[in-house]
Amino acid sequence: MAAISFEIKEKIPGKLGRTGVLSTLHGEIKTPAFVVVGTKATVKALSPEQVRDLDAQVVLGNTYHLYLQPGDELVRDAGGLREFMNWSGPTMTDSGGFQVFSLGVAFGSEVNKFSQKNSTKEAHKSNEQARLAKIDEDGVTFRSHIDGSEHRFTPERSIEIQHNIGADMIFAFDECTSPHAEYEYQTEAMERTHRWAKRSLDFHKNSGMSDTQALFGIVQGGRFEDLRKESAQVIGKMDFDGFGVGGSFEKEDIDTAVGWVNALLPEEKPRHLLGIGEPLDIFGGIENGVDLFDCVAPTRMARNGTLYTKDGRMNILNAKYVNDFLPIEGDCGCYTCAHYTRSYVTHLFRAKEMFAATLASIHNLAFIIGLVAKIREEIANGTFFELKESFLERYYRSKV
Amino acid sequence: MAAISFEIKEKIPGKLGRTGVLSTLHGEIKTPAFVVVGTKATVKALSPEQVRDLDAQVVLGNTYHLYLQPGDELVRDAGGLREFMNWSGPTMTDSGGFQVFSLGVAFGSEVNKFSQKNSTKEAHKSNEQARLAKIDEDGVTFRSHIDGSEHRFTPERSIEIQHNIGADMIFAFDECTSPHAEYEYQTEAMERTHRWAKRSLDFHKNSGMSDTQALFGIVQGGRFEDLRKESAQVIGKMDFDGFGVGGSFEKEDIDTAVGWVNALLPEEKPRHLLGIGEPLDIFGGIENGVDLFDCVAPTRMARNGTLYTKDGRMNILNAKYVNDFLPIEGDCGCYTCAHYTRSYVTHLFRAKEMFAATLASIHNLAFIIGLVAKIREEIANGTFFELKESFLERYYRSKV
Repeated sequence: MAAISFEIKEKIPGKLGRTGVLSTLHGEIKTPAFVVVGTKATVKALSPEQVRDLDAQVVLGNTYHLYLQPGDELVRDAGGLREFMNWSGPTMTDSGGFQVFSLGVAFGSEVNKFSQKNSTKEAHKSNEQARLAKIDEDGVTFRSHIDGSEHRFTPERSIEIQHNIGADMIFAFDECTSPHAEYEYQTEAMERTHRWAKRSLDFHKNSGMSDTQALFGIVQGGRFEDLRKESAQVIGKMDFDGFGVGGSFEKEDIDTAVGWVNALLPEEKPRHLLGIGEPLDIFGGIENGVDLFDCVAPTRMARNGTLYTKDGRMNILNAKYVNDFLPIEGDCGCYTCAHYTRSYVTHLFRAKEMFAATLASIHNLAFIIGLVAKIREEIANGTFFELKESFLERYYRSKV
Repeated sequence: MAAISFEIKEKIPGKLGRTGVLSTLHGEIKTPAFVVVGTKATVKALSPEQVRDLDAQVVLGNTYHLYLQPGDELVRDAGGLREFMNWSGPTMTDSGGFQVFSLGVAFGSEVNKFSQKNSTKEAHKSNEQARLAKIDEDGVTFRSHIDGSEHRFTPERSIEIQHNIGADMIFAFDECTSPHAEYEYQTEAMERTHRWAKRSLDFHKNSGMSDTQALFGIVQGGRFEDLRKESAQVIGKMDFDGFGVGGSFEKEDIDTAVGWVNALLPEEKPRHLLGIGEPLDIFGGIENGVDLFDCVAPTRMARNGTLYTKDGRMNILNAKYVNDFLPIEGDCGCYTCAHYTRSYVTHLFRAKEMFAATLASIHNLAFIIGLVAKIREEIANGTFFELKESFLERYYRSKV
């Protein structure tokens, strides 16, 4: 008995995209779905009820963070992630790979998971911490970003930690490279990721946890078509419950790379695009066969006062909103837009009140979750491309 | 037609204490009641729905803060405080006096509104900012703590600002002295407060706002019995809708001073003890005839990880709670205790997650609001003193 089952419903004609239902032991997920990130067993600034009221279907915790704080054994003793954080629905954890490497390997400044604004800071951090992670065939030794203490992840250790955290869906341990890595290193890292995938899978199956936790394998290969295809074939043949596509590519390469991979992965299993979730990426990913996305961007941007609207992003700290008594977006319908004005939200940000982050996060998550729900609907209606065109034309108009 | 009406229900035999119902244009308040503080038009870390679910009956905004940020005219243009912050129940504002003076006059280090822990810091702030406020017969000139800009409050200006903010209950502008002030200065300040009370009342009545906003006069007089009594008689004779007792006394003097005052104030009007709300003070205040309390202590302490329990205060950051999977208080029944463990709450504080402040604030407010509700019940049952004795014996046991 597998921990999850996946049923495909409708497809985008001539494309890899589809809608479906992913059933877990703790509820169903209508796909495509945006996975809300709750890094340290809390979706920042929100209660689980506020998250649920957004029609969020699934929460992802970060293995690296939870391992360091409060510790995976503590989460296990608390009854697992769901029980610990009071989230009643399905949960996922990542493998910890991305965080271990992003704190260790010298990533370039344009890794697409970091916003352009933060690129210099992140690049600086990467340089500063480049000596903090050391990779070998068996695993990775790294230092905690909290206290500098030394730790080691191997594929087996990552899975063991994820067993302790106890999410419904977990990921094989992978090596997450820079999108700027050369072909030779990308090949080496990919091949190691394949060996680690097999070790992760073996450890998972031998632990007898397959009935309660689904394991996803991760496809790597960077920006190189032959590597992506090779990785999809190798990982796709392993007995995983689903697949992740490692997000180590330039923004403009996402669609193509995802398409290469998903054309080769077994059609009947769910696919997760790791760490990606901006509107353009969501349309491209779904069109190319992605079922699940997770991304911190909507909530991180929200906490900085950057809000999504159908006409593009709005910086609510702009002085013009001080006396603006309209909602953030008139036809939005989220809790924030139903009850508060731009004037109130900018006041809360200016006054450094915590409720600012709550209201902004609610709006941005409602925007993304609502957009993905709308995409599901339009795929079912056979009008995905009409939605894509009209949405993106309006959203990116200001940038053209 | 007055903006509020007040009906006394039951009394504590042989004492000034009573239960009642205070009716405002935006709902009824069962008294005694704890007034939740929403300084800058938000109860820190909570949504209005979370505040409502605590059975909070009324929210108090701070005039000084709202005047500076976002500005009282903006709050007026937004439809008033309730509309601006999405709070559907009754509201109050203070006069701004306490903040103007606490940022200006050289308060001693034991002003009871500042916790002992903060006394040195507050005393330092007071010294540093002693030159920032200048008082004359007409009013007070002060500098903003935000940007140093110069501002002036007079009784008329304070009332005008409170009209703009638009709360159901507002306060006359008073001079809030240090509890250490000498008799001579306390007398001078009290007499000025009386003249300012009359000017506040005249301005309020002439503005035609009496039908929609109730004005409370403030009794001062510090720790001196004759001054407190004189102030209660002078202010009590003025045509206010209710009365505030200025909280400028040592902690141990609260009961006596409040008793002196409330014995003389008109019985049929509601009385508010300004800025006080620790358990011991609540019992003492209610016994001595107080109907309303406001205090930032429960939420401020919560944000620092100090939680109320029936056995006294708990510092949730203590290492012993890391692996403690009990609720903060087993028989509490608040949202936090119903769904989360001490382990989870200390994790959120240690991880510096915003939801820590939310969960802690919910617990502390539920504790205080629940305690005041219990006191109302026991007054009705004629068992107030039994409750007081058993509660305080248990709560303060650790300190004896």
